[in-house]
Amino acid sequence: MINYPNGKKRIIQDHVTDTSRRGMALETDINTTNTYYLDRDIAVIHKKPTPVQIVHVDYPERSHAKITEAYFKIPSTTDYNGIYREKYLDFEAKECASKTSFPLFSTVHPHQIKHLEAVMRHGAVAFMIIRFTAHDETYLVPADRITSFYNNAKRRSIPYSWFADNGYLIPLTLAKPVDYLTIVDKIYFEPKGGAS
Amino acid sequence: MINYPNGKKRIIQDHVTDTSRRGMALETDINTTNTYYLDRDIAVIHKKPTPVQIVHVDYPERSHAKITEAYFKIPSTTDYNGIYREKYLDFEAKECASKTSFPLFSTVHPHQIKHLEAVMRHGAVAFMIIRFTAHDETYLVPADRITSFYNNAKRRSIPYSWFADNGYLIPLTLAKPVDYLTIVDKIYFEPKGGAS
Repeated sequence: MINYPNGKKRIIQDHVTDTSRRGMALETDINTTNTYYLDRDIAVIHKKPTPVQIVHVDYPERSHAKITEAYFKIPSTTDYNGIYREKYLDFEAKECASKTSFPLFSTVHPHQIKHLEAVMRHGAVAFMIIRFTAHDETYLVPADRITSFYNNAKRRSIPYSWFADNGYLIPLTLAKPVDYLTIVDKIYFEPKGGAS
Repeated sequence: MINYPNGKKRIIQDHVTDTSRRGMALETDINTTNTYYLDRDIAVIHKKPTPVQIVHVDYPERSHAKITEAYFKIPSTTDYNGIYREKYLDFEAKECASKTSFPLFSTVHPHQIKHLEAVMRHGAVAFMIIRFTAHDETYLVPADRITSFYNNAKRRSIPYSWFADNGYLIPLTLAKPVDYLTIVDKIYFEPKGGAS
């Protein structure tokens, strides 16, 4: 679909850090789901590109730019946003290897918490998707519960049991491995299913 | 504000192509304006990172990842999106060196036209910002006019005169070098100022 500037088609070797490698399965599942939504014109939601600081670019051939020095930057927003049912939708997704707790403070940057708070003030549907790989469960948690935990935190991690009370288990199908809009419908759009 | 992974602070050397160099002034002006909007909690609108295909990463030191081979990818969406007055807002920005016409077909990818059409169907405030550097004028053009020109095009460029009829001149101040929300207010939010 996309031709890379050097004419080759390659698979991304995304072996950046242990954390990001762990997160790839969830990212792939969300991308698959977003493509399903997009193809059926249900919603337009994309992952933002990974922010990269480009320091040096070579031109081995004219018009074939090759980046030879670049660094990962800390993201200032969440990874996903778009539009659904006329609403701005915004979320961050994290995979969690621990059985007992989600390390909120080491996983989510203060910038991202601020960003979630800002978009909520402007009327966004904002949330986090957190997958506990050991339990094989993927939760949607409304952003206000995450930011409230963050701002009132007595501890740096959220216990696993907290998610049963504050999150919503996201159903899955083969075509929609993380069918989060089903939950969004229920908690943000159904008149009696109010979330917060 | 952001510490790059190698601990150095550098200015981006963005000398990618002539086209992108030309476009930097407008990008900088829009970023300045977006920061103004963000700081005053008027709107949350960000430029998406440039999509890059990462092929090789080195680890000269543990936790200091250095990207040593990467390529620019064709963007599948527009460059800017966010939320304003509870609405999803989406736009693409282009600088134009020609005095007489804007080369729509060579500047905007088919993916981006499709994307603008998709977000409009879902209720977005969608537009393009086009700056004619030679005239020192920056226009906001509602996306439906751009996509309609694109789909019915008898020519690959839009004449400069077309913008006076179909676009809105964006005012500027020092703090807001591209104060596009003033135009958005007028054409998308004022009851009698209907755009399309």
